[in-house]
Amino acid sequence: MSGTESRVAVALARNFEDIEATSPIEALEGAGANITVIGIERGAIEGKKGARIEATTTFTEVSPNDFELLLIPGGGSPENLRIDDAAVAWTKAFTESGKPVGAICHGAQLLISAEVIQGRTLTAVNKIRDDVRNAGGNYVDEPLVVDGNLITSRVPADLPQFNEALVGVLESSRSAGISR
Amino acid sequence: MSGTESRVAVALARNFEDIEATSPIEALEGAGANITVIGIERGAIEGKKGARIEATTTFTEVSPNDFELLLIPGGGSPENLRIDDAAVAWTKAFTESGKPVGAICHGAQLLISAEVIQGRTLTAVNKIRDDVRNAGGNYVDEPLVVDGNLITSRVPADLPQFNEALVGVLESSRSAGISR
Repeated sequence: MSGTESRVAVALARNFEDIEATSPIEALEGAGANITVIGIERGAIEGKKGARIEATTTFTEVSPNDFELLLIPGGGSPENLRIDDAAVAWTKAFTESGKPVGAICHGAQLLISAEVIQGRTLTAVNKIRDDVRNAGGNYVDEPLVVDGNLITSRVPADLPQFNEALVGVLESSRSAGISR
Repeated sequence: MSGTESRVAVALARNFEDIEATSPIEALEGAGANITVIGIERGAIEGKKGARIEATTTFTEVSPNDFELLLIPGGGSPENLRIDDAAVAWTKAFTESGKPVGAICHGAQLLISAEVIQGRTLTAVNKIRDDVRNAGGNYVDEPLVVDGNLITSRVPADLPQFNEALVGVLESSRSAGISR
């Protein structure tokens, strides 16, 4: 109705937890979002369990201004992204813009390296809870935590709640756009 | 000659980086050490690439006093150990005793959760460098770092230097024992 699709960026690297990418992407596409997978380089990215997702652009080719929502799937992907300067700078700029960021499982590792969780309440897989705390985050063990623009979940079992929250925030931002 | 074998503890959990366990174990056994693999529970533990190593005891069954050296292989093992209270307490007690600890790759994740790296100089795989720094460690990017009792390396390519350092420290402690 508004004529503008919601644009969602997915920050992705090798060894992502397959379902933590595919499931939110499917939910967001079902809600009418236009998904762009951003990689360290363009090309196919392989998940831990063999899923292949194409990165059609890179962190140096697109701006955080071009997107309404950032999704950070877990697995080994965030630790590969967090050692890439462009991916970290992009994530930091997007998160500090105040637009919604969804991070699940190890996704918070990228937020730690982007230095955006100081004083924020969030969740993540328990294996990195001490790293979240040491970065100044308030770690809580709940399926879904929403603190301002940070939307976080722990594990694949939390995906129904995580996806619902992402779709909800996208629809809210779209309504806000229409009402302007 | 001394009649007492050096006793080495290996802290191990599921998804360890195979060669980061098998290679130092082989080197230490070659130097006459008696290896004990300690698990969260007894039984076979599977590595990322399919190696199977038997944990013959657990962190609640043996004391840090029973060993001269602690080895912490990397991969996904340390993040599984760091969420186990007994493994963390054991690692903390051993490290604080001043006896040598060798940690490679993601091994430092267990040291972070044991709260023993504040003010210490160490290395680890670069994917966790920000977590090392946030825990108060001085992260350096070198194949081998020895700071007091902490012996650390980054990746499998560093194993020759890591193993040599572990064997060296074991032989030093054995000589010290004989000279008593």
